Amino acid sequence: MDSRTAALEARAAGRALHRLPSARRVALLHRVADSLDARRDELRAANALDVAAATERVSAGTLTAALAARLPLTDAKLDALVAGVHAIARQPEPLGRRLRETELGDGLQLEQITAPIGVLLVIFESRPDALPQIAALALRSGNGLLLKGGREAAHSNQALHRVLTEALAPDVPAGAVGLIEGRAAVAELLALDDVIDLVIPRGSGAMVRHIQENTRIPVLGHAEGVCHVFVHAAADPAMAAAIAVDAKTDYPAACNAMETLLIDRAAADGAGRRAVQALLAAGVALRGDAESAALFGIPDGANFRTEYGDLAASVAVVDGVQGALDHAHRFGSGHTEAIVTEDADAAGAFLDQMDSACVFHNASTRFADGFRFGLGAEVGISTGRIHARGPVGVEGLLTTRWRLRGSGHTVSAVSRGEWEFSWKDRS
Amino acid sequence: MDSRTAALEARAAGRALHRLPSARRVALLHRVADSLDARRDELRAANALDVAAATERVSAGTLTAALAARLPLTDAKLDALVAGVHAIARQPEPLGRRLRETELGDGLQLEQITAPIGVLLVIFESRPDALPQIAALALRSGNGLLLKGGREAAHSNQALHRVLTEALAPDVPAGAVGLIEGRAAVAELLALDDVIDLVIPRGSGAMVRHIQENTRIPVLGHAEGVCHVFVHAAADPAMAAAIAVDAKTDYPAACNAMETLLIDRAAADGAGRRAVQALLAAGVALRGDAESAALFGIPDGANFRTEYGDLAASVAVVDGVQGALDHAHRFGSGHTEAIVTEDADAAGAFLDQMDSACVFHNASTRFADGFRFGLGAEVGISTGRIHARGPVGVEGLLTTRWRLRGSGHTVSAVSRGEWEFSWKDRS
Repeated sequence: MDSRTAALEARAAGRALHRLPSARRVALLHRVADSLDARRDELRAANALDVAAATERVSAGTLTAALAARLPLTDAKLDALVAGVHAIARQPEPLGRRLRETELGDGLQLEQITAPIGVLLVIFESRPDALPQIAALALRSGNGLLLKGGREAAHSNQALHRVLTEALAPDVPAGAVGLIEGRAAVAELLALDDVIDLVIPRGSGAMVRHIQENTRIPVLGHAEGVCHVFVHAAADPAMAAAIAVDAKTDYPAACNAMETLLIDRAAADGAGRRAVQALLAAGVALRGDAESAALFGIPDGANFRTEYGDLAASVAVVDGVQGALDHAHRFGSGHTEAIVTEDADAAGAFLDQMDSACVFHNASTRFADGFRFGLGAEVGISTGRIHARGPVGVEGLLTTRWRLRGSGHTVSAVSRGEWEFSWKDRS
Repeated sequence: MDSRTAALEARAAGRALHRLPSARRVALLHRVADSLDARRDELRAANALDVAAATERVSAGTLTAALAARLPLTDAKLDALVAGVHAIARQPEPLGRRLRETELGDGLQLEQITAPIGVLLVIFESRPDALPQIAALALRSGNGLLLKGGREAAHSNQALHRVLTEALAPDVPAGAVGLIEGRAAVAELLALDDVIDLVIPRGSGAMVRHIQENTRIPVLGHAEGVCHVFVHAAADPAMAAAIAVDAKTDYPAACNAMETLLIDRAAADGAGRRAVQALLAAGVALRGDAESAALFGIPDGANFRTEYGDLAASVAVVDGVQGALDHAHRFGSGHTEAIVTEDADAAGAFLDQMDSACVFHNASTRFADGFRFGLGAEVGISTGRIHARGPVGVEGLLTTRWRLRGSGHTVSAVSRGEWEFSWKDRS
């Protein structure tokens, strides 16, 4: 099947899904979870083929051990996956929620309700358990879905896709969730801006950038996470150290990990130095600009746009909250920034003026995450300013529709003075 | 000044605007309105130059009379403009509105609040009164703005821009609202996807399409409005005729005007025929497919993707609600569709399943408009499914920010079992 046909099938099947009564869409999701649970042997057998091939490639040096490590569908992962799909089924109904209700005039009722976006294209790298999680989110929100997985997980993805789409019948055509294979297909799909409504890349920054640069379809996600922790003059030294260490070392490869420690010039000999020492003690390689290198005895030459993704970070000395704002606005990616301070005014200025998706006071940047924010399953984290920003839950897969109910109302009757707009808010 | 410098100035000035206390941003807008009111002579003198040049070009046949007619800044237009800016100033504060509030754990408070998008680029054609209206919306919502107007209105736009930006001092740098001139600048601006966050084109479908095809910046708007009125089997004949005539003739050039009349096969000899006759009587040129041409004695050969923008429309015969859905999904632009029927089930199916921004029952498509919907000033009408859909008010110029306040909270403490997420909804 060619890419356009698959996309058109996803649109038609998505509309069929949206037409289902809520209870049937929920039952369908529980059925998907039960099928994944019941057919574990089949999934594990397919996964074993991918894992064996990956092991050979790691030996041959053509695949990194880190990527290979994300492949195995362990029993624990399958448990989490089944539980996750049941949990998505139990979430409150996202569709048809009334956001606004206005009586425009006598007997003329307007409402704005939530609706599916249409067709989503999700491109993800080796982790195969992403497939059913993403599919469950798309099914919950009434969207058609096209999935493009990594070559490393091809057998696993095919098996997951087979189990999942067989569970859709008889409610929804299997085309509601399409699995696309082959590298050439990606370029074809990215050109379908008349059928595909949103692209969600889940993978490396390089992959996200490549997609952003090669499509006119809106892209939800982020290529970079250059997050800052700012140690203000009035920071509690122990807290500054604990937050900086957590933000950097809890999971250094995460997009919400700290990449740059900003130190208020007035805190250089207090909380700032304490944070630097704590990071060094935790095994973090630090690099500063000329001033911070001299102050703290660390190497200089930091590039403040670097996303290390590792036990390494940049250090800069800045002047107060304004200096921190200027530095992050200039070098940051607008993902997540945190201030550590006991001064309420400084915290307020930072929270109000830092132009990032997530801005924190006395808390680690690692909290920037859909699960930790309580959004349930996470679609991704967006650094864009259009549609959805920051950690995105199922609402990121919704749009709205306006519905108007009248009894023969015309606009020319208003011009003729037969009635007037009243605009009564009923919501 | 080059385009990038202007865009960076707009971003910095937008941040200054966002920093202002709400009352000062409101006062600034009233000051803008008062300046426009007080400096009418200056505005009219500049406008007279454009009108004189346009009159010559109409005589020479290089400008259409329709475009020239939109140029004059009459006293009535200036009145409306001044009143409009005061009205935007009086709207409820759009910034910092709390959309969600969750206690993630003891002493760890998350909130999602509204925030400005950043930098908007608005490209508009000859109507100069659009300039202060758009600028007022951008100022109200704390956004930096770049404006590119039509050559025909160059003197008027310069005068409006001068009056407006002089009223920004001392609160905000004049760069908050940049006026860009020259055709070459548009291509430069459309390439600045790292500084400009949203493009809003206000003009012809051809202009919108050109912009959509030449930028990676998100575009809010619509290139086409191929709207449908569906006369169902159970339609009231007089109502069907009145709604079809209003939808087509009230303002045929509008994007929300009907372009295609869909007639239920079962209504062909009743309400459908009555609607056709009423349209013909109102001077509308109709064109059908083979079947409707034969049924109603009108020319055939209709192209159902045509946006006539004039006293002309297509006619098609379809089978019931499903036929109408299929036709509009295939040929429509997803803007606005209306069903005329007394049958609640048919209306319900149409309202639920028609995948358009606006879906109406027993009301004219002409209601699809921000002012008529009660949104106050209108940014535009979007047929996109990302960010904002349908008539867009000031909310279309907003994004959100997440703010988290803790007292030293770290994620590793959760892993160590020191505390657990509670996720209490406080909103």
